[in-house]
Amino acid sequence: MELKEKAFKSVSRKAHPEDTVIDIGGGVKFGGGNFTVIAGPCSVESEEQIVGIAKSVKKSGARALRGGAFKPRSSPYAFQGLKALGMDYLLEAKRETGLPIVTEILNIAHLSLFRDVDVIQVGARNMQNFELLKELGKTDKPILLKRGLANTLQELMMSAEYIMSEGNARVILCERGIRTFEGVTRNTLDLSCIPIIKEATHLPVIVDPSHSTGIARLVAPMSYASMAAGADGLIIEVHNDPENALCDGDQSILPAEFDFITQKLKMMAGLFDKKL
Amino acid sequence: MELKEKAFKSVSRKAHPEDTVIDIGGGVKFGGGNFTVIAGPCSVESEEQIVGIAKSVKKSGARALRGGAFKPRSSPYAFQGLKALGMDYLLEAKRETGLPIVTEILNIAHLSLFRDVDVIQVGARNMQNFELLKELGKTDKPILLKRGLANTLQELMMSAEYIMSEGNARVILCERGIRTFEGVTRNTLDLSCIPIIKEATHLPVIVDPSHSTGIARLVAPMSYASMAAGADGLIIEVHNDPENALCDGDQSILPAEFDFITQKLKMMAGLFDKKL
Amino acid sequence: MELKEKAFKSVSRKAHPEDTVIDIGGGVKFGGGNFTVIAGPCSVESEEQIVGIAKSVKKSGARALRGGAFKPRSSPYAFQGLKALGMDYLLEAKRETGLPIVTEILNIAHLSLFRDVDVIQVGARNMQNFELLKELGKTDKPILLKRGLANTLQELMMSAEYIMSEGNARVILCERGIRTFEGVTRNTLDLSCIPIIKEATHLPVIVDPSHSTGIARLVAPMSYASMAAGADGLIIEVHNDPENALCDGDQSILPAEFDFITQKLKMMAGLFDKKL
Amino acid sequence: MELKEKAFKSVSRKAHPEDTVIDIGGGVKFGGGNFTVIAGPCSVESEEQIVGIAKSVKKSGARALRGGAFKPRSSPYAFQGLKALGMDYLLEAKRETGLPIVTEILNIAHLSLFRDVDVIQVGARNMQNFELLKELGKTDKPILLKRGLANTLQELMMSAEYIMSEGNARVILCERGIRTFEGVTRNTLDLSCIPIIKEATHLPVIVDPSHSTGIARLVAPMSYASMAAGADGLIIEVHNDPENALCDGDQSILPAEFDFITQKLKMMAGLFDKKL
Repeated sequence: MELKEKAFKSVSRKAHPEDTVIDIGGGVKFGGGNFTVIAGPCSVESEEQIVGIAKSVKKSGARALRGGAFKPRSSPYAFQGLKALGMDYLLEAKRETGLPIVTEILNIAHLSLFRDVDVIQVGARNMQNFELLKELGKTDKPILLKRGLANTLQELMMSAEYIMSEGNARVILCERGIRTFEGVTRNTLDLSCIPIIKEATHLPVIVDPSHSTGIARLVAPMSYASMAAGADGLIIEVHNDPENALCDGDQSILPAEFDFITQKLKMMAGLFDKKL
Repeated sequence: MELKEKAFKSVSRKAHPEDTVIDIGGGVKFGGGNFTVIAGPCSVESEEQIVGIAKSVKKSGARALRGGAFKPRSSPYAFQGLKALGMDYLLEAKRETGLPIVTEILNIAHLSLFRDVDVIQVGARNMQNFELLKELGKTDKPILLKRGLANTLQELMMSAEYIMSEGNARVILCERGIRTFEGVTRNTLDLSCIPIIKEATHLPVIVDPSHSTGIARLVAPMSYASMAAGADGLIIEVHNDPENALCDGDQSILPAEFDFITQKLKMMAGLFDKKL
Repeated sequence: MELKEKAFKSVSRKAHPEDTVIDIGGGVKFGGGNFTVIAGPCSVESEEQIVGIAKSVKKSGARALRGGAFKPRSSPYAFQGLKALGMDYLLEAKRETGLPIVTEILNIAHLSLFRDVDVIQVGARNMQNFELLKELGKTDKPILLKRGLANTLQELMMSAEYIMSEGNARVILCERGIRTFEGVTRNTLDLSCIPIIKEATHLPVIVDPSHSTGIARLVAPMSYASMAAGADGLIIEVHNDPENALCDGDQSILPAEFDFITQKLKMMAGLFDKKL
Repeated sequence: MELKEKAFKSVSRKAHPEDTVIDIGGGVKFGGGNFTVIAGPCSVESEEQIVGIAKSVKKSGARALRGGAFKPRSSPYAFQGLKALGMDYLLEAKRETGLPIVTEILNIAHLSLFRDVDVIQVGARNMQNFELLKELGKTDKPILLKRGLANTLQELMMSAEYIMSEGNARVILCERGIRTFEGVTRNTLDLSCIPIIKEATHLPVIVDPSHSTGIARLVAPMSYASMAAGADGLIIEVHNDPENALCDGDQSILPAEFDFITQKLKMMAGLFDKKL
């Protein structure tokens, strides 16, 4: 089954044959031959935690810091994030390290809290929250749009189209696994989608090896495989103390392992024409 | 794999052994042995259309009118609904027929437009839009919560828990098909979820045979099968002119076929201890 | 996505507009308005067990006896069936009750053991074992062909075509659940496939509510839903002592529950134009 | 969900901590740090075709030749392979190039035709044809066991256990994509299974980037990603004239592209501690 490319007006590579390069500030770019790694904890837990991890991942080569202040959780009784306080801590980490900040929005009403955020993330569960997408399309912030667990590539690109149709052309796509019958991994990472997306659109596409697999020891091989498949970067969960993480500890790697991974990615980069 | 029932505080049948009966006004109830049929077009297209269909489906036994004023569409370039005007037409249909109105909300900012709506629908794509669920939990409106295309029953019930945890106990669940490899039907209707939900929770659960299959001629058999599986009702797309419908014409049935279906459901009802 | 009906030469209803009625002996027929129930244990465990269950299910209205002598098990270390001895016990049950026998073949080399069997079952795992299908196509036995866990309806009908293309026109199709992300049920029973199959082919199609759900207390509602969806019959696991069954006890119902189900199916039959 | 490793007696890495190295003859080995590439057409079409492709892929670095003589096809009316004649042509290609032969068995009755074959392939559709697996377990041939389209990793390893439990310890596993809702690729290649399999078992595991994606231009990136994910090799479809191939032309690459891929894999090999 072919993609219906005629449905993509702004997203299509036919409309824009060159790679879109998205500059998120601080000299950090996505697309155009860059391989850009975002790292950080699932959720911001304290100022000390986020600043400490930020310093560590920066040293290893991360170019942006992730961390959730607003957390979408299946249960209303689970930890929902530090919210505004978490945003303050993230911005403190940015001040101390210079790393641009990537964090998730759940509600357009929170937009004013994202003024100093560098990339606004739309999570998998909101990939077809079209009202949110349209509002984000009116901002001037780069948007990291994650593929929903049951969404086709066609739908992922149509959701990017929602953002672009409102005027915001800075969309970074992210593959993070789809739901299948296989239960050993949390989701099934669909790496063959990477060359398809790169062919069909001019937007950068990155991979989340942490949420897709849900298993820390798969992060390294899936990171290498993502570069080999043609991805433009990664978003990796790194935690200083995964066993006591407030969420998703099972999939978080330690700073030392993150360092090992980035060193190996640097060795691979030349072979895959990537700047890292 | 068993449901993790401990995670359900308010939703669990253990917390509330009796069926919850939800009175949506006009003497129309869901749960407690009622089999309640909602019918109407995918989207409101004109006053004449919606009033005409409302009169027709009422005559056949529908107890509530559905119709989309705000439409979530994969493409930003597809018809997005008549919005506020569509709401006016729906309310006109309510005035003329007395049928309670069921219509979908996409954005909590639109809530004021739903003042005279009887049941607010949360579509499959928003099943894990937790911010929306929390806000709806603060209203006093019955909520029709549709299962997401890739969501487990555990997650469906946790989303109901989000609404109930904010104080709104009037949640109607809806099975509308899940995404699988089988492409002949639009989705795969998961009828075996019905007895599982009825066992695990006290909330009513209905079935959408139109969106789940995407094929008009499957609506009749899947409606009968839904009652036989133990559902508390149906939500069916009926259109006076499916071939020219502005959306989802392929799955809409004509008023005459709807009449045939409700007659047969009435004949079945006694066998399944349902009031229709 | 439409079925590619041109690919079906013998299976297609276009080739043969009337329902095929398959007489398996003893006056028992599938198709043509009959609703035919096969019942029995997952596997034959002893002569006493199979004869006892046969007598009981016959009294309740079962028209054929199922029971596995050769069992396909995921593990080589699990019980593999009583094999030839199991066949002897099945035939003894047939002698004592007159019920035709339905049992699974795993290897064409065992065919001589199936001489007195009335229906040869091809299990889900062998649905695309084309070599087996071709050989069975050369026999004069009715074949019960179960849908594979990841097979499309198109493929199910093509597998029936393999049997028919060799000359054996007596194929009964069976839906028994497909693999999806939902893990509360063992598989997801795809009841919307029933009207599609009935439309596309002239062959009878039955449902297995036991293997599809894997949960005994879902067998009753899914049996009723199957008739309502238009199926031509059922194959149900019944065991006198499910807790000590050598396989699949979780999904086996007791004879008393089977009796309750068949009574209710008889009450439904008139409404659905079925003879039971 | 963890693998149930206790179920694996012979397959488990706990039973055999070292990698199993499988020597298929001609100095060609799988496992133990080797990265071994099998290449060739989907089906053997003529002596000239198979000998020509064999010479070409050997020059590019393929270590074994694939080619189907017996073809499992969804339709009984599709080309079923050249059968015994195809075997002759394969053996001629072996004589002329020295490349070991990998070809699929559909029926144990054909075993005598496989006397001079070096690796017997069990296709995805037969992964749970336990009778075939048991018979192959009694031979002394290396077995290439492909994962079924809806089979879990647990089941794949249990099927290897079937072969090993009969005495044949030379099993090579192969990931070739699973069935999901995403239809742009033929199947979804599950690369995160590779590190899981390598951890749980001592057997080599290779990847089929051709059948999994069904798209020729995805073969290169998925080949690189497979090595990066930790696979022990690849099986790639190469055809001299894909547009006129008797089967699966859409996924076959030309010899020149195969040469490009193997050159790049050689450049990657050092980074991933592989001998190629």
